[in-house]
Amino acid sequence: MNNKNKINIGVAGLGTVGCGVINLLKKNKVEIFKRTGFEISIVSVSASNKDKKRDCDIKGLNFYTDPLEMVRKENIDILVELIGGESVAKELVIEALEKKIHIVTANKALIALHGNDISEISNKQGCDVAFEASVAGAVPIIKVIRESLNANEIEWVAGIINGTTNYILTEMLKSKKNFNIVLKEAQDLGYAEADPSFDVGGIDAAHKLTILSSICFGIPLNFKSIYIEGIEDIELDDLNYAKELGYAIKHLAIGRKNKDGIELRVHSCLIPKTRLIANVDGVKNAVVVSSDSAGPTLYYGAGAGSLATASSVVSDIIDISRKILSNSNNIIPLLSYQRDQLQNKNILNINEIESRYYLRIRVTNKPGVLADITKIFGSKSISIESILQKEDLVNDENVPIVLVTHEVIEKNIIDALKDIEKLDVVKGKIIKIRIEELES
Amino acid sequence: MNNKNKINIGVAGLGTVGCGVINLLKKNKVEIFKRTGFEISIVSVSASNKDKKRDCDIKGLNFYTDPLEMVRKENIDILVELIGGESVAKELVIEALEKKIHIVTANKALIALHGNDISEISNKQGCDVAFEASVAGAVPIIKVIRESLNANEIEWVAGIINGTTNYILTEMLKSKKNFNIVLKEAQDLGYAEADPSFDVGGIDAAHKLTILSSICFGIPLNFKSIYIEGIEDIELDDLNYAKELGYAIKHLAIGRKNKDGIELRVHSCLIPKTRLIANVDGVKNAVVVSSDSAGPTLYYGAGAGSLATASSVVSDIIDISRKILSNSNNIIPLLSYQRDQLQNKNILNINEIESRYYLRIRVTNKPGVLADITKIFGSKSISIESILQKEDLVNDENVPIVLVTHEVIEKNIIDALKDIEKLDVVKGKIIKIRIEELES
Repeated sequence: MNNKNKINIGVAGLGTVGCGVINLLKKNKVEIFKRTGFEISIVSVSASNKDKKRDCDIKGLNFYTDPLEMVRKENIDILVELIGGESVAKELVIEALEKKIHIVTANKALIALHGNDISEISNKQGCDVAFEASVAGAVPIIKVIRESLNANEIEWVAGIINGTTNYILTEMLKSKKNFNIVLKEAQDLGYAEADPSFDVGGIDAAHKLTILSSICFGIPLNFKSIYIEGIEDIELDDLNYAKELGYAIKHLAIGRKNKDGIELRVHSCLIPKTRLIANVDGVKNAVVVSSDSAGPTLYYGAGAGSLATASSVVSDIIDISRKILSNSNNIIPLLSYQRDQLQNKNILNINEIESRYYLRIRVTNKPGVLADITKIFGSKSISIESILQKEDLVNDENVPIVLVTHEVIEKNIIDALKDIEKLDVVKGKIIKIRIEELES
Repeated sequence: MNNKNKINIGVAGLGTVGCGVINLLKKNKVEIFKRTGFEISIVSVSASNKDKKRDCDIKGLNFYTDPLEMVRKENIDILVELIGGESVAKELVIEALEKKIHIVTANKALIALHGNDISEISNKQGCDVAFEASVAGAVPIIKVIRESLNANEIEWVAGIINGTTNYILTEMLKSKKNFNIVLKEAQDLGYAEADPSFDVGGIDAAHKLTILSSICFGIPLNFKSIYIEGIEDIELDDLNYAKELGYAIKHLAIGRKNKDGIELRVHSCLIPKTRLIANVDGVKNAVVVSSDSAGPTLYYGAGAGSLATASSVVSDIIDISRKILSNSNNIIPLLSYQRDQLQNKNILNINEIESRYYLRIRVTNKPGVLADITKIFGSKSISIESILQKEDLVNDENVPIVLVTHEVIEKNIIDALKDIEKLDVVKGKIIKIRIEELES
């Protein structure tokens, strides 16, 4: 044991999560001490504006407007990086590591885009970098994969890891409203940003999948290889038809080992309603990890929020503190696998994946249309599992045809849809949503 | 760092889980090494009969019929205790700890009944005792509570932690069969023991709740304080009525802090079907932990099985090995709280808890019966939330009345039911099932 029993913390960034960490460490000081037997003390903080009104009390703490200055001047054991974004955060974390200061961060972009470099430096310095809060908020999915499923070969991971998109999809179906209206409401409620593109466009989920897929499959972080679709094209009709077919539509981040390589993709899916994850609604997050020995396991909880995210940040602080006090830092590799065992593997192009598909095609209501369409599917070896007839709509001039295909390679579907969209009787863009069984 | 990079293991007990551990460590040797960078080597095993046909290969391992002899003679770092039961296991674990051998066990009875003593000895010896596999099989609920939710004050924990009972309740509703028939089928499938009383009577779940409640609430292990009911009294009718009312019936283990003390109870409950845990079916396990900061989080997966349980055992082996190699054992308290911070708290008697209740009363079909019954409820200040009328049964001589009460103290319900059962028009025992909202 180290002969000190107090850990000094510097917190960079005093937004929602930063204030959550300050509040949580104060609120549960006694409870945390009962478990750890040592004191965790925030000694300094940084933020761009000292006098801004905020939901936490920073009186008595050393304040810096420049987080780099804080790292240079303060004698801290752990830097808690909650600034977000990439550039300042990266510079700050690297400078701290060079001073042998351990890092706790909630910054998914930082880890997803610069984690390979950070891993190299932290390993050299014998420091820990913990990032539980970067994926799925309060849900301890990073620790679970790195420390609990580590006897397994992990086969696939699939998660609802963006609360905004899950809220919007849930609310569209519940209140029978279209995407744009619900997005506006989500913005008013604070569930979506003014610029929602990071969330609804899938970038945020892709950052998180970059992290999950690396620690699951032993590959270096590789954000660029992820195929990304948002939820902008999902219409209320699709949510209703999916429900009628026994499915829920969820925006998923999926990583899967198959015989030819690794699939890494973020997009909406139909999931059988009998799967637990298909019943995860609202802003909540959930991740399923399917492993060769443990089988499928699921982890669910709040994906965001001040105290919920702080819960993961502080658990990382406790972890690292225990290691500091027992001189055992850096015994668990940052990306779960030993650095020299990380291996670039073949990341499949989206064209190469196999899936079943939900298709909604808007057609002129006249005889022979279905025959024209199924002929094209036949020519691409695509077989149809079921067709949903909407009898109540047959009097309209245009009617939707909803089809579910058997398993087929994505390239073939794309080719077929291109040909079908050329038919005179087909109106507008065909809606295509992949179906994921998530066998469990 | 310790200068060795090989950890020697002795496995006591070669049943389903013991063989699972041997098979898993062989199967995923490379995958595990890629993560850890060191070798985990099983050097010796013990079982009562060497020549018994079993599903794992023990050739080349030192074999003992007496596990105590193995511990005395072999130079092992970690003893994996998979014998089960209490007496031999306890003696073995204590002897190993006295030799400063670390322990991994899947034995819930051992920890629930003797964990306080074991914690004292292991703490004195500077050894780790890990028991992830003792609760919820592959689901890493122990690590999550000890290491991920440790910044929280935990408010309640509720789990489906006995696969046999959950299988039986699921199957009764699905196949419209009664308890005894499904129990027999479960025994034939190997999901229930020949003597099923430990499982269907709730003892197994109570052992596990003993462990969960200690690490959640900072109380010493106290099996005797748990209120236990099994599932023997649940009839198919109740499962159907509950469904009609929007609930599922699940056998839960519940620990909850309330203003007067701690509730510790194992019994069947109605849970709103909108809760995720109400949709956990078959042999699967799930635990919800509700904390002041993280909010409710849920953990789901296989609760039993050879490799699934071995997944947790081996993750404990990896954990302890990393600590051995970095000289950092015994830095996380066995029961999550520092030993001197464990505190006996008031465990409430079941009579003192407050709940809503589902009641099924079989009555003679004649006018005035309902008035007689509601009069008694009124006299005990019990108000009725809803009554389920079974119109299709009104021609029978006896009819069921299904009632849901508002929140009331258990003692009042028991008193009222005693009086109601005395009415001439009431036939047989009244079925009483608590309703749990599990707000999330």
